[in-house]
Amino acid sequence: MNQIDNKRIGIKQIEGGVTAAKGFQAAGVEAAIKYQNRKDMALIYSAVPCVVAGTFTTNVVKAAPVIWDKRILEEAPYAQAIVVNSGIANACTGKQGMDCCEEEARYAGELLEIPRDCVLVASTGVIGMQLPLDRVKEGIRKLVEAKAQGKEAELDAAKAIMTTDTIEKQIAVSFEISGKTVTLGGMCKGSGMIHPNMCTMLGFLTTDAKISKEMLQKALRADVVDSFNMISVDGDTSTNDTLLILANGQAGNEEIQSEGAEYEMFCEALHFVTTYLAKKMAGDGEGATALFETKVVGAATKEDARILAKSVICSSLTKAAIFGHDANWGRILCALGYSGAKFDPENVDLYFQSKSGRIHIYGSGVACDYSEEEATRILSDPEVTVLADMHMGAEEATAWGCDLSYDYVKINADYRS
Amino acid sequence: MNQIDNKRIGIKQIEGGVTAAKGFQAAGVEAAIKYQNRKDMALIYSAVPCVVAGTFTTNVVKAAPVIWDKRILEEAPYAQAIVVNSGIANACTGKQGMDCCEEEARYAGELLEIPRDCVLVASTGVIGMQLPLDRVKEGIRKLVEAKAQGKEAELDAAKAIMTTDTIEKQIAVSFEISGKTVTLGGMCKGSGMIHPNMCTMLGFLTTDAKISKEMLQKALRADVVDSFNMISVDGDTSTNDTLLILANGQAGNEEIQSEGAEYEMFCEALHFVTTYLAKKMAGDGEGATALFETKVVGAATKEDARILAKSVICSSLTKAAIFGHDANWGRILCALGYSGAKFDPENVDLYFQSKSGRIHIYGSGVACDYSEEEATRILSDPEVTVLADMHMGAEEATAWGCDLSYDYVKINADYRS
Repeated sequence: MNQIDNKRIGIKQIEGGVTAAKGFQAAGVEAAIKYQNRKDMALIYSAVPCVVAGTFTTNVVKAAPVIWDKRILEEAPYAQAIVVNSGIANACTGKQGMDCCEEEARYAGELLEIPRDCVLVASTGVIGMQLPLDRVKEGIRKLVEAKAQGKEAELDAAKAIMTTDTIEKQIAVSFEISGKTVTLGGMCKGSGMIHPNMCTMLGFLTTDAKISKEMLQKALRADVVDSFNMISVDGDTSTNDTLLILANGQAGNEEIQSEGAEYEMFCEALHFVTTYLAKKMAGDGEGATALFETKVVGAATKEDARILAKSVICSSLTKAAIFGHDANWGRILCALGYSGAKFDPENVDLYFQSKSGRIHIYGSGVACDYSEEEATRILSDPEVTVLADMHMGAEEATAWGCDLSYDYVKINADYRS
Repeated sequence: MNQIDNKRIGIKQIEGGVTAAKGFQAAGVEAAIKYQNRKDMALIYSAVPCVVAGTFTTNVVKAAPVIWDKRILEEAPYAQAIVVNSGIANACTGKQGMDCCEEEARYAGELLEIPRDCVLVASTGVIGMQLPLDRVKEGIRKLVEAKAQGKEAELDAAKAIMTTDTIEKQIAVSFEISGKTVTLGGMCKGSGMIHPNMCTMLGFLTTDAKISKEMLQKALRADVVDSFNMISVDGDTSTNDTLLILANGQAGNEEIQSEGAEYEMFCEALHFVTTYLAKKMAGDGEGATALFETKVVGAATKEDARILAKSVICSSLTKAAIFGHDANWGRILCALGYSGAKFDPENVDLYFQSKSGRIHIYGSGVACDYSEEEATRILSDPEVTVLADMHMGAEEATAWGCDLSYDYVKINADYRS
């Protein structure tokens, strides 16, 4: 379900991010890990132990923090803090990189007075460089000192995890479970090497819902398939992709231990939050001037719908055409055609739509008689949608990407310097 | 076998292209199909009937000429001419597009005094527009009049099939089979929507070898796996990909009817020609400033080697780093990691090499102690190679791509106008 009627089901978007839920604090500080004169380390902390769930990159090459967090999720009964740095990814750093994760967790645990194995870590930035452990530790000291609840603290944290992002990305919602108000908030960062597989680049969610670890993991794993896994900026699946959710139970609802109305409610709220963040990430892709959405309807299977939608938003040629506000629908049909899903090209309808309107551009195997001027106007909006009706069945899916601009090349031709 | 010791096995590169082999003529003329003031239609013609083989796009959306040619290859006993136009792809053009192919073939057959079903057609350019049949027919008339053997005619043809290519791509070789000198020549064009699957954008080969249709098809099908299918410019598999080879038997060798030394010799020469053309196409990718080669050695299986090599040359982030002459090897390791092939990242060695030298950049799970200055010098050459030793087995493969530049975006943001 991509379009949630959130009013009907009682999900209310509220101010804030990772400290919106009860009992969470956050901080963002300058630690000069690699960037100068900007915040580059963040902390998320819960006053009480949390159950935790996560999804991680499927890349064979996994960054040290990914390996650390996976172990914590498997072995530790709960977690209570996440330490994040931007600038250096701590990937392809061998034993020294793993030792660094351990020391980060140990030191944060010491200062926060929680066990080392309750501290999760995450890094994003350049691959192959070692983290400067002394500056990381100094950053942790500052983070622990600065941690607080509220608008300023969570904004600092959301800014500190950014790399090439142009804007912080956070959201919070509240909803009711068994008569109790539950809050769920989150933040994430892009904006290159974004083609998540089972997770996103870096995303952190916090909730005061009371939910079992098993159900939390189940909800997260099911959710990413239609949220973070449906976005792409450049087709590159990162070594560091990490999505974590901490649930500290402070809302006081009856614990969600199995499927049912409460679990469904929680999943809806989760999907509202993850879809919001995923779209923000796609729209703020490196160099992007537009959010490029592709909605496939009438597909034979759900998997076909996902494959078709994702193939279009991943096509370099289509992305370049969107940048140029050029209604080059042939490239869209081409990308549907090589996706791997079967369909009859003569029986597809393609539309462009945005807040400026909607036009039918292809049907019955040939171009429709549309106005190029109108098409260009629609394509000049900052959010552009391709609607593809495959007429093969009733399944649908939506994927989100961005256009391909000069700035993508500029950013990535010299990212390390 | 990617590096052929062509001197040892007696393959000699000679001047020319599609008319180098005995009995072939070619032409290229201005027909104003879409482009103005440049050649945009080409003809290849054999004085005698040829056996013909071909491979075509795997895209579900197939252009009308692809459908026409596939039928000819299945049904007609031989072929004698190929008519090509650039500017308009005749893809997604419905019945009118198919009728146009038929009329092209009929009219060319009439003027050349050969059956309609001996005429193959190919188109490249914008998807979705109808071909102007009157101008196409006028072009065919000029082509038939202009057709000739030799340097000028084949160069005209090679230029006429170009779209965003910056240079024509042709080659010819000679070799011996059963005491007779056999010649094989070819031409092809890129340079966007290039991510061939079982074929290339447009490639045309001619040979005077005497070979059965069955063995010709077998040779071509086996060859593309390690030549044209190992290149990519932008990951977009076209609707028009077509590779055709005409063999007219004029060399007078004993007909190749089965596997054996003569067949092997023919395959080696074919691979020399196709690899040459494939590399030219990759190096002349839209906006490219460098040919970007990735050679994977020590892979567990041949298929793994191909997948790994191709994943690296397809990575947008790596391509942008190559454009920036930035030794960002983390992106290479990342691309190997998400390719789908299994390996141990701690046990991979990565090297950059070019005519300026070779450096070891990654090994034992961490960065090597290399000079960034030397790396930049190597990466500033127009042909750059990444060598990845996986230490998993003895299989190897090479893939070719190009860097990702501002010009790729420029060319594709407004290709239709």
